[in-house]
Amino acid sequence: MGVCHGVIYGIAPSATIIDVTHAIEPFNVLQGAAILADAIPYLPNGVHVAIVDPEVGTERRAVAVKCDDGRTYVGPDNGILTLAAARSGIACVIELDTRPAPAGSRTFAGRDLFVPAAAHLARGVELSSLGQPIGADSLAEISIPAAKAESGYLRAPVLAVDRFGTLQLACSVVELEESGLCGPVLVNSNRGRGLARRAETFSEVEIGELLLYEDSFRRIALAVREGNASDLLDAGAGDWISLSSDPAV
Amino acid sequence: MGVCHGVIYGIAPSATIIDVTHAIEPFNVLQGAAILADAIPYLPNGVHVAIVDPEVGTERRAVAVKCDDGRTYVGPDNGILTLAAARSGIACVIELDTRPAPAGSRTFAGRDLFVPAAAHLARGVELSSLGQPIGADSLAEISIPAAKAESGYLRAPVLAVDRFGTLQLACSVVELEESGLCGPVLVNSNRGRGLARRAETFSEVEIGELLLYEDSFRRIALAVREGNASDLLDAGAGDWISLSSDPAV
Amino acid sequence: MGVCHGVIYGIAPSATIIDVTHAIEPFNVLQGAAILADAIPYLPNGVHVAIVDPEVGTERRAVAVKCDDGRTYVGPDNGILTLAAARSGIACVIELDTRPAPAGSRTFAGRDLFVPAAAHLARGVELSSLGQPIGADSLAEISIPAAKAESGYLRAPVLAVDRFGTLQLACSVVELEESGLCGPVLVNSNRGRGLARRAETFSEVEIGELLLYEDSFRRIALAVREGNASDLLDAGAGDWISLSSDPAV
Repeated sequence: MGVCHGVIYGIAPSATIIDVTHAIEPFNVLQGAAILADAIPYLPNGVHVAIVDPEVGTERRAVAVKCDDGRTYVGPDNGILTLAAARSGIACVIELDTRPAPAGSRTFAGRDLFVPAAAHLARGVELSSLGQPIGADSLAEISIPAAKAESGYLRAPVLAVDRFGTLQLACSVVELEESGLCGPVLVNSNRGRGLARRAETFSEVEIGELLLYEDSFRRIALAVREGNASDLLDAGAGDWISLSSDPAV
Repeated sequence: MGVCHGVIYGIAPSATIIDVTHAIEPFNVLQGAAILADAIPYLPNGVHVAIVDPEVGTERRAVAVKCDDGRTYVGPDNGILTLAAARSGIACVIELDTRPAPAGSRTFAGRDLFVPAAAHLARGVELSSLGQPIGADSLAEISIPAAKAESGYLRAPVLAVDRFGTLQLACSVVELEESGLCGPVLVNSNRGRGLARRAETFSEVEIGELLLYEDSFRRIALAVREGNASDLLDAGAGDWISLSSDPAV
Repeated sequence: MGVCHGVIYGIAPSATIIDVTHAIEPFNVLQGAAILADAIPYLPNGVHVAIVDPEVGTERRAVAVKCDDGRTYVGPDNGILTLAAARSGIACVIELDTRPAPAGSRTFAGRDLFVPAAAHLARGVELSSLGQPIGADSLAEISIPAAKAESGYLRAPVLAVDRFGTLQLACSVVELEESGLCGPVLVNSNRGRGLARRAETFSEVEIGELLLYEDSFRRIALAVREGNASDLLDAGAGDWISLSSDPAV
């Protein structure tokens, strides 16, 4: 939202702002947490605000997390920050003072609480001035559902879908290899199916063919070359995908 | 559009640009005017360009409006600027000289007229050098349709829908209170209906339940917790929503 | 993608970034090439990265093209840069060294190859340090399909569709005039039809009426005033549109 940029520049006029994404699926905290953690290695050191906040207005805490690598994360304490913060040691955690400012609202904590706090931090304000210290071990936990691999079979949830219809699975190349799947792989969602070829790049398969590859964030992904895997498999974020050997091979 | 950013940096290389939104419904001048006025308190003082311009290429005037609070608004004289400019006194109004530059077009006044004018102003060019002064009272008027409240009943148009499907109504909390509606409220669009609970935050209702609340811009809004009110009610911007007491209560 | 901004600021902290568009149709290299070439006159001199890259991960070359006007283009050698670079003489072309960095991926060359190269150039690194010179005449060619005009008849492909549903044709006003079409024009896509009036601005036709006009990038376009020509004609990028005289006139 542009108003958040306005709030930042109002507090920290010389800030450099990067919008990582506005395409998180509504209310999907896990997807937000995973995308934040994946993006961090590509972002300059700074103050990182992340907000997927289905419980806005409740007693869920608002926190700022300072890490040993110098990065500071600001957001709701619902797990959205946890995967990113866990990339390095946590130096300290502050529960943000949420007494609403006169103009504050109960439903737009991004604009009225998290973004102003982050802008003050970017400008050099001390973290300790924004609230009370709390224990790092009290932070909400979150974990990416584990892929289930056994010989010749693997099941994993879809973490995210991009605008090309590529399905990013919560599955590493190690897990894929544990399953032993390597030849053409039968792919099943709840509602669609296809036959995928294992590849390193799109060019190894035909146009229109489904491929299974390690994506640029080191997760296993399903795509159709110049096509749309989400449409083909009728699957989206949160759906589970089964991969199994093709009995015809 | 990125080309507008290019035009701005070409004229005012050190400008700071904020894109407030690109999601105004096509041709919906009233929605643009309301969103601009709502955003202004969160934006640093500056030059604000707003363009929803169904009459581009006609004789409608192009204007720059300097306000007593130091802000300057630039856009077509069709009402898009009026609600924002009315937030403070108007110091002067200039009708922009629209003689097209050699490369100018008849259909992209944003890129060819409004954005260059704004960039020159941001760089310090005198407003008076961009055209002729006109009377502030000659500016096109616009007004948000009034909600109609009576005892136990309220009717209001939808101003905007966000990506979560939340319906923002042209209705203040004062108008809602005039209607006396407080218990569960029957909500009717032309095509859908639901039963909404009055709440301050999403957390007060169940997941999937419709709620009626004052949003962060101080307008009454309808949302479904972790769901989509626009889909539920089959309603969008410009539709009228009726709220009435639940006879079953 | 925000991570690309992060990569740029990490290398060139004082860079000014303009996102021209993220709305190129997936895999449509021609559309990307045309939009880049159209945007260039409105962008400050600089390093321009353009990526529509269906063959990512193949042996297709990665190039940087320095032009006589001082602009540098960076992208895959698949034609995406060709129309823009051809606007001025080409001073030299470098095939980028694509040995992947340790963290590099095979499928996100934007983040891992093109954007870092562009950021280094923006910061002042010598083009010659990024790879080996190659001949400008070895660059992949691309051309916009020619409109076919004859007396009373014209056929042209749709280059792009904007969010208002306006169809931009690969057709100049010269080609339209060669066809002699000037009165009401019968418009046919493969799936829809309409009757368009020739106009200079939207205001010359009625609300809901189809018009044929020269757009702000000097291409012939079809739009419906306060409506959606793409919906009316059921046509999108790559479809061919036929224009012919209305026999009823």
